[in-house]
Amino acid sequence: MAEALQPLAGEPAARVVVAGASGFAGALAAELVWRHPRLELVHATSRSDAGRRLDELYPRYRAGIELTELDVDEAEDCDAAIVGYPHGAAAPVVAGLRELGLQVVDLSADFRLRDPNVYADWYGELAAPEVLGDAVYGLTELHRDRIRETDLVANPGCYPTATLLALAPLAAAGLIEDVVVDAKSGVSGAGRGGGDRLHFVAVDENAAPYGTDGHRHEPEIRQELAALAGGRGPRLTFVPHLLPIDQGELVSCYVTPRRDLDRAELDSLYAESYADERFVEVLDRPPGMREVRDSNLCRVHATTDRGGRVMVFAAIDNLWKGAAGQAVQNLNLMLGLDEGEGLG
Amino acid sequence: MAEALQPLAGEPAARVVVAGASGFAGALAAELVWRHPRLELVHATSRSDAGRRLDELYPRYRAGIELTELDVDEAEDCDAAIVGYPHGAAAPVVAGLRELGLQVVDLSADFRLRDPNVYADWYGELAAPEVLGDAVYGLTELHRDRIRETDLVANPGCYPTATLLALAPLAAAGLIEDVVVDAKSGVSGAGRGGGDRLHFVAVDENAAPYGTDGHRHEPEIRQELAALAGGRGPRLTFVPHLLPIDQGELVSCYVTPRRDLDRAELDSLYAESYADERFVEVLDRPPGMREVRDSNLCRVHATTDRGGRVMVFAAIDNLWKGAAGQAVQNLNLMLGLDEGEGLG
Amino acid sequence: MAEALQPLAGEPAARVVVAGASGFAGALAAELVWRHPRLELVHATSRSDAGRRLDELYPRYRAGIELTELDVDEAEDCDAAIVGYPHGAAAPVVAGLRELGLQVVDLSADFRLRDPNVYADWYGELAAPEVLGDAVYGLTELHRDRIRETDLVANPGCYPTATLLALAPLAAAGLIEDVVVDAKSGVSGAGRGGGDRLHFVAVDENAAPYGTDGHRHEPEIRQELAALAGGRGPRLTFVPHLLPIDQGELVSCYVTPRRDLDRAELDSLYAESYADERFVEVLDRPPGMREVRDSNLCRVHATTDRGGRVMVFAAIDNLWKGAAGQAVQNLNLMLGLDEGEGLG
Amino acid sequence: MAEALQPLAGEPAARVVVAGASGFAGALAAELVWRHPRLELVHATSRSDAGRRLDELYPRYRAGIELTELDVDEAEDCDAAIVGYPHGAAAPVVAGLRELGLQVVDLSADFRLRDPNVYADWYGELAAPEVLGDAVYGLTELHRDRIRETDLVANPGCYPTATLLALAPLAAAGLIEDVVVDAKSGVSGAGRGGGDRLHFVAVDENAAPYGTDGHRHEPEIRQELAALAGGRGPRLTFVPHLLPIDQGELVSCYVTPRRDLDRAELDSLYAESYADERFVEVLDRPPGMREVRDSNLCRVHATTDRGGRVMVFAAIDNLWKGAAGQAVQNLNLMLGLDEGEGLG
Repeated sequence: MAEALQPLAGEPAARVVVAGASGFAGALAAELVWRHPRLELVHATSRSDAGRRLDELYPRYRAGIELTELDVDEAEDCDAAIVGYPHGAAAPVVAGLRELGLQVVDLSADFRLRDPNVYADWYGELAAPEVLGDAVYGLTELHRDRIRETDLVANPGCYPTATLLALAPLAAAGLIEDVVVDAKSGVSGAGRGGGDRLHFVAVDENAAPYGTDGHRHEPEIRQELAALAGGRGPRLTFVPHLLPIDQGELVSCYVTPRRDLDRAELDSLYAESYADERFVEVLDRPPGMREVRDSNLCRVHATTDRGGRVMVFAAIDNLWKGAAGQAVQNLNLMLGLDEGEGLG
Repeated sequence: MAEALQPLAGEPAARVVVAGASGFAGALAAELVWRHPRLELVHATSRSDAGRRLDELYPRYRAGIELTELDVDEAEDCDAAIVGYPHGAAAPVVAGLRELGLQVVDLSADFRLRDPNVYADWYGELAAPEVLGDAVYGLTELHRDRIRETDLVANPGCYPTATLLALAPLAAAGLIEDVVVDAKSGVSGAGRGGGDRLHFVAVDENAAPYGTDGHRHEPEIRQELAALAGGRGPRLTFVPHLLPIDQGELVSCYVTPRRDLDRAELDSLYAESYADERFVEVLDRPPGMREVRDSNLCRVHATTDRGGRVMVFAAIDNLWKGAAGQAVQNLNLMLGLDEGEGLG
Repeated sequence: MAEALQPLAGEPAARVVVAGASGFAGALAAELVWRHPRLELVHATSRSDAGRRLDELYPRYRAGIELTELDVDEAEDCDAAIVGYPHGAAAPVVAGLRELGLQVVDLSADFRLRDPNVYADWYGELAAPEVLGDAVYGLTELHRDRIRETDLVANPGCYPTATLLALAPLAAAGLIEDVVVDAKSGVSGAGRGGGDRLHFVAVDENAAPYGTDGHRHEPEIRQELAALAGGRGPRLTFVPHLLPIDQGELVSCYVTPRRDLDRAELDSLYAESYADERFVEVLDRPPGMREVRDSNLCRVHATTDRGGRVMVFAAIDNLWKGAAGQAVQNLNLMLGLDEGEGLG
Repeated sequence: MAEALQPLAGEPAARVVVAGASGFAGALAAELVWRHPRLELVHATSRSDAGRRLDELYPRYRAGIELTELDVDEAEDCDAAIVGYPHGAAAPVVAGLRELGLQVVDLSADFRLRDPNVYADWYGELAAPEVLGDAVYGLTELHRDRIRETDLVANPGCYPTATLLALAPLAAAGLIEDVVVDAKSGVSGAGRGGGDRLHFVAVDENAAPYGTDGHRHEPEIRQELAALAGGRGPRLTFVPHLLPIDQGELVSCYVTPRRDLDRAELDSLYAESYADERFVEVLDRPPGMREVRDSNLCRVHATTDRGGRVMVFAAIDNLWKGAAGQAVQNLNLMLGLDEGEGLG
């Protein structure tokens, strides 16, 4: 097999390190940077798999780069970083990389929650609180202008990405009184670890809710819905379910609106909200997970039932728009590149 | 291969015809009757597959009976029937079999809705309205005494079965103000036809809502919730989703209660409601589809979220408790047999 | 949930311990003993999961027995044991249980290979070589009479079970010159451990050969084919493949026969060989994995291609006939019970 | 959703019609032409789905082109065609398009077999025998130079593609005495029709051989192996199996070599044979289906077992390298473009 050459077109716009490239999201981030025509993948690091090549660890990927141990100082030769560390472990790495002057997209939850007390409730003490104020929540479609200006993006969780894209038009119009989010995810969303619970035999032909005592993505959704509504957010119930699928995510959102809404008004609201978005597509039918797989798309459908409930369905690929794809989308903006570059 | 002998123990309690035994539910009904120690499977009929053996058509089954064309008059030698015809086509067959004096469990929707106008709204004109008044809605746990006395059971749909078992304790206590039911089903629930939509390639690695403009199981759920509440039922939204699974069904019910309910009260309510039910198991964790597969069990878990919403999850096998298993459970009652006989 | 009562009918024929009941095969063995009308499941042990109930660890099972640490001396109150320990670890446990006078079926490979040198080549030094001479290779259909007489059965591997049932008629007639066995297995055959390799994401939508440098089931197949042929066995190539399926196994055997064989002769040979076997069914079409799932059946089809190659296909459930089902079948024989008891 | 614009860069190298774009292979061919930077997708036709958009019929695709009825004369405005018609129906369409002067890649079997009698044995009378002599068998790696010169390519079947790439180095060296090909395919290889047999419920958790009385891809394999060997080909047994996977194909080839071959010699043979091929990758481990999905790659691994049998495993995506991907690869060559253009 010939050495895998990166498809760079001329001088790169940025030299990039992906720190923590052996997990599902980090590995795809490395692959996407490697495929990117304007970015150069300089380092891909892993604590557990240093010495192996990324395309050996994930034979479906093509990036023939050897995984190395992270040495933050060595990242000096880079302009930007995507960090794929676990929650808690990410914060000090992010802080270190920023001290070297790198622009950073962090895939972890460490800088997503603006209130450190809320973070502490769900994850424990934040390791680098001094960085928190600089972070922009990286749901591109909601915070594009601030992402362009920042050098630290806290990339959203997969469930918040789909849920917020489903609900943003209603939330921004102050129309949500109460919302139930029944979310369904493929297994890659649960990560590479997981033991017995993610063994093929446990997942195959099965489907079950989990996290019914509270899921860590809930405060993220709550924070952004409140911000959109310009104050207190709606009453929210959020329950994720695990499905026997590799990549893919579907959220079914059941909204009790503050006032009656008919389908025509909903159609206009969604069409206008996303008219200029290339990665959000408004459909006239419910989306399926499969149709957005391996893409950075979010497909959304809003409708009502006979009793006046508003129902919004959104599908994404949890590893793309829900993690690594959105990270590259954000990095493109931070670097002044076209937002969709490398995500074609 | 030796001729498949039916495992009858002595004289049968009843001789049974399964009319329409080539669809998924009808075929399992025939198989269950065949396996039943007290029932004799005398005829299994099929319009489309007459001449084939049931265990050829479904190699996973063991009933070595040849499928024949239905001739209602020939059913005279039987005591009871399970009818697996499509909606609309079932009613005249049911009427004919009853004229011969057979006890009938009908798997179709034809006699489930007590109000013929509601039936007409969803299915069209009912073919044998004169029979409607005799039918008992066959959700065993709700109507056991009446099922024992009737000779016509309208076996419930799969979604209503899971949903009503999830909600009955709350509904009967008048505690449901509003409920969203997000239902997930394996593909066998959609039946043997279905064309492109149920092709392996369309379903595999996919998950999507369907019937968002109104699903035929909704009036059934509405009717029974109202009956349980002793008047008008709660506000209801019901949305089914198709999953890449063969058999299995999970309903996630999000209830806005009429008054605050804590987990202890919920636990008691559910434990008491189902204390004497052998096919309904109350769990202290959410059930998965896989754990009730190929069984007549319904596993239920009720809990609350931090905002006071009551969440109830129920899992069944859509072909067993959701169709053929419950049919046999009902037939057992109608015949004075032990309710669980042949469902072990 | 009511306490799960074991469906015993009167006095048990034997009191049974399942040692090592937390792995896939051991757990099913415990479940089958628990369901068995003539056996009493007295202990189910586990090193890793002691203190948990079997039906919690495997919610699809119904045996409400608490897993305990194995204390060989405590097994004194039992008459028989099924041992589900890993290769190497099983031998001393088996030896200890036999010293107490128990009849033992061992699911491991420790006593399958009659030549301790061959064992050593593939597994390492055998821990209890003094026991080896007493063991009978537990492929029921080949060694039924000796199994009836022994008190130690070495239960075959899943691949050897399917392969030998596919090939025994030809092998016993001395008709195999050369055979290629292309085997396909569901994931449960690879066991509960396995790490990343058995993660849902690694297996889903994938299929690949493994063990191409030699699989441990090969010497077992070789030993029995040679014994059937009464001397040196045929030239054998054996390659297993992992499929995205839970339970199930299919072997495709491509035989170069020692002389020309037509289909009629093959049909007779197989029909006669298995005429009296209730768990081996000879078909006139190739079997699929799904049709023997959750059963102790092996379905076999033998045919020829246009060039005179003999092709034999056999399907089993790797956890049933390939492990725990056959263990119970053997235990029934050892205890003088009907061979199929509890396997209905 | 914005109108889907085709990502053309400047003037197209050719204007292309895809005739028969509603089947699985034809639809992907249309999608690949649509994505191609140098080709313009002018028409995509369908008898069954005219009037629908391709991206509605296959929501996973992005080509927003409306399917039309084929009118051969209207194809005059095109330079090239890919024909996705069923066997038998393709020949007259191919003939008609060539009369208009189009370069044609035909996905059907109609012009694959050089001997019309062999064709007739497997498919029936050939409709346009006068065209047969012009066709080049489109396994790119074997016939690249002739493909560059022809204006009619008979694109190979999926099984022959994988099998021939697995065996070509050995066949060309005259080293194959006898070969068994055990092939495994995802369901998309069986096409969009198929009825009950391809219903999700029939395929899920199942695996079975089919076509054991002779599969139509066998004569194709036989023809090319003989041509490679420069005379009579080896003894061949070919058996396909259907797996519960969407896209993907794996062939396991068991070769009895004409003389002893060790692994080092095999390694050299394969490394040299495919040194300059960008779509064939020689691995030092067996490939899995998943790793070539949605790519035009064929990954090959050759090794030996302890008894001297040579084993070669090859994996492709049946819709890409096995159909539409190779069609575009061939069209690129016919048009003088870079072979890999649009297949990145």
